[in-house]
Amino acid sequence: MPKVALVMGSLSDFKSLEGCIKLLKKFKVETEVRVISAHRTPEQAAEFAKSAEERGIEVILAAAGKAAHLAGVLASMTALPVIGIPMNSSTMDGLDSLLSTVQMPTGIPVATVAINGGGNAALLAVQMLSIKYPELRAAMKEYRAQQTQEVVERDKEAMEMAEKL
Amino acid sequence: MPKVALVMGSLSDFKSLEGCIKLLKKFKVETEVRVISAHRTPEQAAEFAKSAEERGIEVILAAAGKAAHLAGVLASMTALPVIGIPMNSSTMDGLDSLLSTVQMPTGIPVATVAINGGGNAALLAVQMLSIKYPELRAAMKEYRAQQTQEVVERDKEAMEMAEKL
Amino acid sequence: MPKVALVMGSLSDFKSLEGCIKLLKKFKVETEVRVISAHRTPEQAAEFAKSAEERGIEVILAAAGKAAHLAGVLASMTALPVIGIPMNSSTMDGLDSLLSTVQMPTGIPVATVAINGGGNAALLAVQMLSIKYPELRAAMKEYRAQQTQEVVERDKEAMEMAEKL
Amino acid sequence: MPKVALVMGSLSDFKSLEGCIKLLKKFKVETEVRVISAHRTPEQAAEFAKSAEERGIEVILAAAGKAAHLAGVLASMTALPVIGIPMNSSTMDGLDSLLSTVQMPTGIPVATVAINGGGNAALLAVQMLSIKYPELRAAMKEYRAQQTQEVVERDKEAMEMAEKL
Amino acid sequence: MPKVALVMGSLSDFKSLEGCIKLLKKFKVETEVRVISAHRTPEQAAEFAKSAEERGIEVILAAAGKAAHLAGVLASMTALPVIGIPMNSSTMDGLDSLLSTVQMPTGIPVATVAINGGGNAALLAVQMLSIKYPELRAAMKEYRAQQTQEVVERDKEAMEMAEKL
Amino acid sequence: MPKVALVMGSLSDFKSLEGCIKLLKKFKVETEVRVISAHRTPEQAAEFAKSAEERGIEVILAAAGKAAHLAGVLASMTALPVIGIPMNSSTMDGLDSLLSTVQMPTGIPVATVAINGGGNAALLAVQMLSIKYPELRAAMKEYRAQQTQEVVERDKEAMEMAEKL
Amino acid sequence: MPKVALVMGSLSDFKSLEGCIKLLKKFKVETEVRVISAHRTPEQAAEFAKSAEERGIEVILAAAGKAAHLAGVLASMTALPVIGIPMNSSTMDGLDSLLSTVQMPTGIPVATVAINGGGNAALLAVQMLSIKYPELRAAMKEYRAQQTQEVVERDKEAMEMAEKL
Amino acid sequence: MPKVALVMGSLSDFKSLEGCIKLLKKFKVETEVRVISAHRTPEQAAEFAKSAEERGIEVILAAAGKAAHLAGVLASMTALPVIGIPMNSSTMDGLDSLLSTVQMPTGIPVATVAINGGGNAALLAVQMLSIKYPELRAAMKEYRAQQTQEVVERDKEAMEMAEKL
Repeated sequence: MPKVALVMGSLSDFKSLEGCIKLLKKFKVETEVRVISAHRTPEQAAEFAKSAEERGIEVILAAAGKAAHLAGVLASMTALPVIGIPMNSSTMDGLDSLLSTVQMPTGIPVATVAINGGGNAALLAVQMLSIKYPELRAAMKEYRAQQTQEVVERDKEAMEMAEKL
Repeated sequence: MPKVALVMGSLSDFKSLEGCIKLLKKFKVETEVRVISAHRTPEQAAEFAKSAEERGIEVILAAAGKAAHLAGVLASMTALPVIGIPMNSSTMDGLDSLLSTVQMPTGIPVATVAINGGGNAALLAVQMLSIKYPELRAAMKEYRAQQTQEVVERDKEAMEMAEKL
Repeated sequence: MPKVALVMGSLSDFKSLEGCIKLLKKFKVETEVRVISAHRTPEQAAEFAKSAEERGIEVILAAAGKAAHLAGVLASMTALPVIGIPMNSSTMDGLDSLLSTVQMPTGIPVATVAINGGGNAALLAVQMLSIKYPELRAAMKEYRAQQTQEVVERDKEAMEMAEKL
Repeated sequence: MPKVALVMGSLSDFKSLEGCIKLLKKFKVETEVRVISAHRTPEQAAEFAKSAEERGIEVILAAAGKAAHLAGVLASMTALPVIGIPMNSSTMDGLDSLLSTVQMPTGIPVATVAINGGGNAALLAVQMLSIKYPELRAAMKEYRAQQTQEVVERDKEAMEMAEKL
Repeated sequence: MPKVALVMGSLSDFKSLEGCIKLLKKFKVETEVRVISAHRTPEQAAEFAKSAEERGIEVILAAAGKAAHLAGVLASMTALPVIGIPMNSSTMDGLDSLLSTVQMPTGIPVATVAINGGGNAALLAVQMLSIKYPELRAAMKEYRAQQTQEVVERDKEAMEMAEKL
Repeated sequence: MPKVALVMGSLSDFKSLEGCIKLLKKFKVETEVRVISAHRTPEQAAEFAKSAEERGIEVILAAAGKAAHLAGVLASMTALPVIGIPMNSSTMDGLDSLLSTVQMPTGIPVATVAINGGGNAALLAVQMLSIKYPELRAAMKEYRAQQTQEVVERDKEAMEMAEKL
Repeated sequence: MPKVALVMGSLSDFKSLEGCIKLLKKFKVETEVRVISAHRTPEQAAEFAKSAEERGIEVILAAAGKAAHLAGVLASMTALPVIGIPMNSSTMDGLDSLLSTVQMPTGIPVATVAINGGGNAALLAVQMLSIKYPELRAAMKEYRAQQTQEVVERDKEAMEMAEKL
Repeated sequence: MPKVALVMGSLSDFKSLEGCIKLLKKFKVETEVRVISAHRTPEQAAEFAKSAEERGIEVILAAAGKAAHLAGVLASMTALPVIGIPMNSSTMDGLDSLLSTVQMPTGIPVATVAINGGGNAALLAVQMLSIKYPELRAAMKEYRAQQTQEVVERDKEAMEMAEKL
């Protein structure tokens, strides 16, 4: 069973990341959920990152806000792919989190998703794992088909709603 | 041998992506290099994306500028992981390309790297492939060690340069 | 009777687009209202765009948020004029939607209106159709005259309100 | 023969708009090219806008930079569709021009294209005119086909260039 | 008695401008309060601007949001000094209004104050009028002294409040 | 003869302000040109601001870049109207200078012109002085007429240039 | 006992700065809390800054919003280190305050912390004072250890919370 | 003799930091100049930060660009005050570097100076050290006096230059 870790910089981000955790569960990806701060617990961050591979983790998801260094700091200490989730905090509308996560210097990439994009981070992790696990590729295709179907159903409603205006 | 595709929206971006192509070669990742425009060649984009998996491609890298739809459009038509490279164009300093690439709605993620971050896109592709190919994981660790060594050497030079001021 | 299509990327944008739909009705423009996602229903998007002209549609209005690719994607597959409506989503105050819609590369234009500018999109569609339909030009002039009259009436109120302060 | 006007706020923008003028010629659209400043020649702007329709003009293209009011000012005095081209000036990378052009209040739309997007403005004008003139629709489809063909040819070159690296 | 006009683009901005109107009253500056839209009532705008000087108005204050052309449009048709008040509207946090007001091309200046800065616009108008009217200069100095006194009193409270924490 | 002062934060801005100085000369406004830094010469700034009125200065123009405090600092120590000119410096494209100059808190206004808008600052100063000096109002109207005439002449050239393309 | 001053531009910022004051108390740093406006009380600002050193103050913390000149103005009149706290005000999401505080020209630095970063300003002041006061260095290390411990405890909760989803 | 360390993320920033190094020399502050990358040499960064205090370093200056994590990462592993210098890199005009450096979460402050503000970082370090070393306070006052004198001399030149225009 494939295994990932979702690390958040603060427990206050848990609520916003529930969708991410649920999606990983839906795809039957074992998920280690952690609260580790790049700045307040640097030792724990290093310990986590350096041991992640040998503990069987295959992809790391890191969610942080403001000067969001978490994803980059973890990425600097592991060869595993790291997905960065910029969390919107109280000011700057997420722009600080986004730039701090995505603008990594050459040598250490972070696979960045949209601001507050926990759900997409889960799907991206599944896509990465699908390179190795064909059953995840199949599950993803099914998920996509359902997703398409849902939009198709919304499409039918729209015309009716418009006629009532 | 693992295989990826690097798709650019315009041949004018080739120069900026040479580092990306060379890095993929260095890691012995077979790379299909394409020029496909989401807007000017939508048929080709669809054909490419839909056939990529069966042609053995495991990761897609997509580089585009301005209203950079390429990565998202390809991602919408394949279950493969797609890496987006926002290319800086003549105005807006790359902010338009970055936001158009990274701010994907839930359901279809794009793994976004820094503006003009072709090199990191190559390294991220290798990290994704490493989930399946242990030899790439090993090669990445070696690459990282060399990279560290280069900075360590620069570190020695700095003190000398400072003394001469 | 002239005919347009209003396509929204998500049914959640319906509320914000009611003004647009009502304005089109007011001008007696037949309007096909659709929910099609550039990313979640790419097949439907292609089918819609390619068949729009032969189904009698003369202008397409496309409303989407975040990395708003919808207008550009539809524009790439039809020769009809496409109006893009950037919808404000939860972060970035609509800047991402605006840049993703308006910064189209040369070759495929999108006629972009203001963020959340559904009403103006309707008026712009009527102006485009007026090139062919003189009755719409006349109706637009009448609409403008009424609009002017309303501001003139507000003008009278302002002085009184100021005197009461 | 269909007729449009291209109005620029300053003759210094002429160079950047040559591509626009050439494209309009290519499509055999008669083009009145004018220099009118919303701020320095308000009388001329009003005279132009109010007489445009009766002089046979069917679409107005307006290019201006900085606090780019030209398109909006013309749009307020005509019922013709107005395309706004935000020109990049010496500071702010075109963001000021873009926002001043696109963020029109409800009632008076401006069909905005990309910063410095003169070429796309020409194509958009042709698309608008195509609603009435079927020969322009046909010409546009041919133009698109050529454009697609050019990208397809670039696509062939890319692979060869990559192999030489 | 000195006389100014405060023109707002929409009556919905009245509430935000009450402080401005009250300040002008406090300084005994006669104020004509108007609702005129640069885009929806261009004739009224021209008529107002061209006749302002002869009707005894000495300074014009213009408040508008989004693509805020009002101040610039009025300034283009009068030699009177025009103060621009960029009003924050629903998106873009006032940046669009600010840039549309302040980034005027050479030849036609607009004296721009802060976003939603109606109060400061009133004070700036008084300062301009003080060049001619010495009694306003004196009144302004008194106003400033009171303002300073109020901050000095707040200063005393702060230390006490801090001690209670 | 009316008198103003143009204060720049650094002599390196002189070149960019030559147009401003020349315009003031053209209108026969006596101009005291100074280099005073809000941060490096705070005593000189205070001395200048406090004595400006009694030395006969009627309007102050202040040009500064980056965290441009100069205009605000001078405005806090005089009742004269202060015009702020945000100068573009090496980074941030003038946005820092603009916001630092225009976003003044209620109580102390700064009449802000465009980034690098020295020319418009001169014209605005003349407009302010015109409230008192009718000859300047007349001169301004003449200047405007010439300016209009120049654009009208450019207008004639444009059509010819377009025909040659 | 070490002594600092916390100066705020307006008493309305007191609430947001309570955490800052409490932290300084916790570290037993004597704190003079003041309300001084760079613009509305320039004399008081000068008097405060010039006398701060001799009154035993060793670090100045200055909190202000919008065109936040307070920190820079105080820094220009003292050789003490000045920490700037950019306060988020009603528009621009704090970007104006941040740029006005941090972008100081060479010669007069301001040690800037995050938008609304009062807490970090207190910690930074303690770190500066620790250069001289070893007991503060020790206290800071203890504070850090507690902070780390708190995150470690949150870390334990996260896994349980995730399992319940 | 007081001692600081200047750490840069890349030797390519050396040129831009020469002014910083020279200023520290001028104040006779012993300076350890290092090249350490938060991402490419995380071990070296940790080793440096953890040993800095015992090696006699009293202030750390850290200069980095793009997603500039260096200052924050060092600050997380030492109780010494850390000054962050955001370096402008090829895109985003330094905004990414600034936000990544300054927007630190509560608990770990970074004293941030202007983009490319190496000179001010040196002066800020001297100000911090002056809390303990009175001779540095005196030297700083002398430096300030000279700096003031230089502006005063420029002030004399300006009037002459203006007269020649």
